[in-house]
Amino acid sequence: MAPRNFVIKVPASSANIGPGYDVLGVALALYLELHVTVDPALGGETNSDPNNCRLSYSADSEGAATVPLASDANLITRTALYVLRCSGVRTFPSGTTVHVVNPIPLGRGLGSSGAAVVAGVMLGNEIGQLGLSKQRMLDFCLMIERHPDNITAAMMGSFCGSFLRDLTPQEVERREIPLAEVLPEPSGGEDTGLVPPLPPTDIGRHVKYNWNPAIKCVAIIPEFELSTADSRGVLPKAYTTQDLVFNLQRLAVLTAALTMDPPQAELIYPAMQDRVHQPYRKILVPGLADVLQSVTPRTHAGLLGICLSGAGPTILALATENFEDIALEIINRFAKQGVQCTWKLLDVAQGGSIVETSIQE
Amino acid sequence: MAPRNFVIKVPASSANIGPGYDVLGVALALYLELHVTVDPALGGETNSDPNNCRLSYSADSEGAATVPLASDANLITRTALYVLRCSGVRTFPSGTTVHVVNPIPLGRGLGSSGAAVVAGVMLGNEIGQLGLSKQRMLDFCLMIERHPDNITAAMMGSFCGSFLRDLTPQEVERREIPLAEVLPEPSGGEDTGLVPPLPPTDIGRHVKYNWNPAIKCVAIIPEFELSTADSRGVLPKAYTTQDLVFNLQRLAVLTAALTMDPPQAELIYPAMQDRVHQPYRKILVPGLADVLQSVTPRTHAGLLGICLSGAGPTILALATENFEDIALEIINRFAKQGVQCTWKLLDVAQGGSIVETSIQE
Repeated sequence: MAPRNFVIKVPASSANIGPGYDVLGVALALYLELHVTVDPALGGETNSDPNNCRLSYSADSEGAATVPLASDANLITRTALYVLRCSGVRTFPSGTTVHVVNPIPLGRGLGSSGAAVVAGVMLGNEIGQLGLSKQRMLDFCLMIERHPDNITAAMMGSFCGSFLRDLTPQEVERREIPLAEVLPEPSGGEDTGLVPPLPPTDIGRHVKYNWNPAIKCVAIIPEFELSTADSRGVLPKAYTTQDLVFNLQRLAVLTAALTMDPPQAELIYPAMQDRVHQPYRKILVPGLADVLQSVTPRTHAGLLGICLSGAGPTILALATENFEDIALEIINRFAKQGVQCTWKLLDVAQGGSIVETSIQE
Repeated sequence: MAPRNFVIKVPASSANIGPGYDVLGVALALYLELHVTVDPALGGETNSDPNNCRLSYSADSEGAATVPLASDANLITRTALYVLRCSGVRTFPSGTTVHVVNPIPLGRGLGSSGAAVVAGVMLGNEIGQLGLSKQRMLDFCLMIERHPDNITAAMMGSFCGSFLRDLTPQEVERREIPLAEVLPEPSGGEDTGLVPPLPPTDIGRHVKYNWNPAIKCVAIIPEFELSTADSRGVLPKAYTTQDLVFNLQRLAVLTAALTMDPPQAELIYPAMQDRVHQPYRKILVPGLADVLQSVTPRTHAGLLGICLSGAGPTILALATENFEDIALEIINRFAKQGVQCTWKLLDVAQGGSIVETSIQE
């Protein structure tokens, strides 16, 4: 049997985008890649993994030194096993190798774990030749990661708004489903050999906005990691009506403003203000308060708006020009707080996740 | 001097639209009309009003029996006087008559007072020949009515999202400005003869969404009035993060979903759900809970979504067909609660407010 080869590419993403807490996500042209080979002739070599998958990371991959390589411990392959087991398949086919190239920094608010989940679902679909649509694959993703913002952007591409619909009484009636309940062992306790239930259909609803491609994303990435759990821990449990309306109003304007041509800084900049998460996360990101207050379209032509990317600590600046000036200004302000940063200039990834199949010669 | 004649037309509007509390507004093709004549030859006849304005309402106008006709008491003409006095003009020109034709029900959540404020500002601008742009006129409106949703839709037309920008320290630093401080006496205390300060510029920011004209608005109008103050009084002072995110997510999707062709009920209906105001206003609108639960796209083909119009009690149903069936179903459910209703089928008013000038023959 001829070996199969394919590459899965999943973009990084930035969520929240100012007032769009847990709502907006934008896919960024920085791709997690899985280089996959299924070669029965290699079977013996992959048998050291109980699920027949030999997993490796390129040396320059983000997280290469720390991510687990056992297929039932690594988030990408565990997610793929979940998808396969829902179809009654217990393991990868004999002779599966997955080589990961990951330029997305971990724990920085650039959607690395969302990309891993999306890549894992696509890997399961492709390995199992299940023929799932992207909309259906999104259901599997949303069983594992219940925040649709990064996931939807990474899967579908471009600039998305999304929500989880209310599940019917016939469906699972829980807002948060622990990883342990849907992912394979060791997370999920004993391997009973039973087929896990399929996810409900159309868990997530989304729209794509027609992002103006003249708007580029400047990501300024501090050297330290922030866990999403820590970042959520500092948020309040309740919000005033004033703060709620503040974000609702700006969110409604921002989604349309980022599609206009030419982009209007005087509309976008105030519409990117937020009162739901950024004010509380300043304590976790030294330099954020200074940057939000001091770097504006008046000080830097071409700048449209600045926000925390996801839960941080990465800063996302939207701009049409002067990218380096803007990045260095922000880097300098972080340096004053003792925080080193790198930066990347990124286009919006219009197409979302893809599978490239190479024909064997 | 030849008499001047013109007609000002201002549409009704529906605000909130599901999750868009204090954010969204849609202009409806049901117009408040001011038929205005300035004829110096009539001067003597208008002198019974201290501000030279003879005001009348058509007999079939909503509110004809109850609205005050003194120019310093009526909301439309008081607002016009405010605009004029900001330009140093104390009264209407001698011989001004304003005849109002108003089909917009009062106190029902269809933007009657927003339309009155917009009409008043346009009247002041036209009478004083001030040449203000619509954006600038919006500033005057927003000094009087600090909620931009109805005002923006009525002035600009179509389907709008809007916010009030933060005022700078040089500008007036108050979120709510009492009517008494900006409107002429009797609201404003003594007539000092001073020129009131001009409003800050660009108080409001807005975007227009490209509403799909296949979507029509069915307004089901209960016979009783609800004051905005009473409707606001039942709302909580704080919201949970879950309810906040619920509305943010649906708002982001709804604004785009209403522009899509063909409209998708399976996207629009769940995106029109709200947890910020409708659950609390059910107590004020008998029948609302029943209607929201029982009338759906499954029971009525063509129905896209149902919400409270503004602060209520009017129900707004968006639909592409079966308008009468939908309206009668809702009317019947209100009748069971002892509430009589009328209904109107309305297009979205794409153009907003206009002034029509007739040439004297």
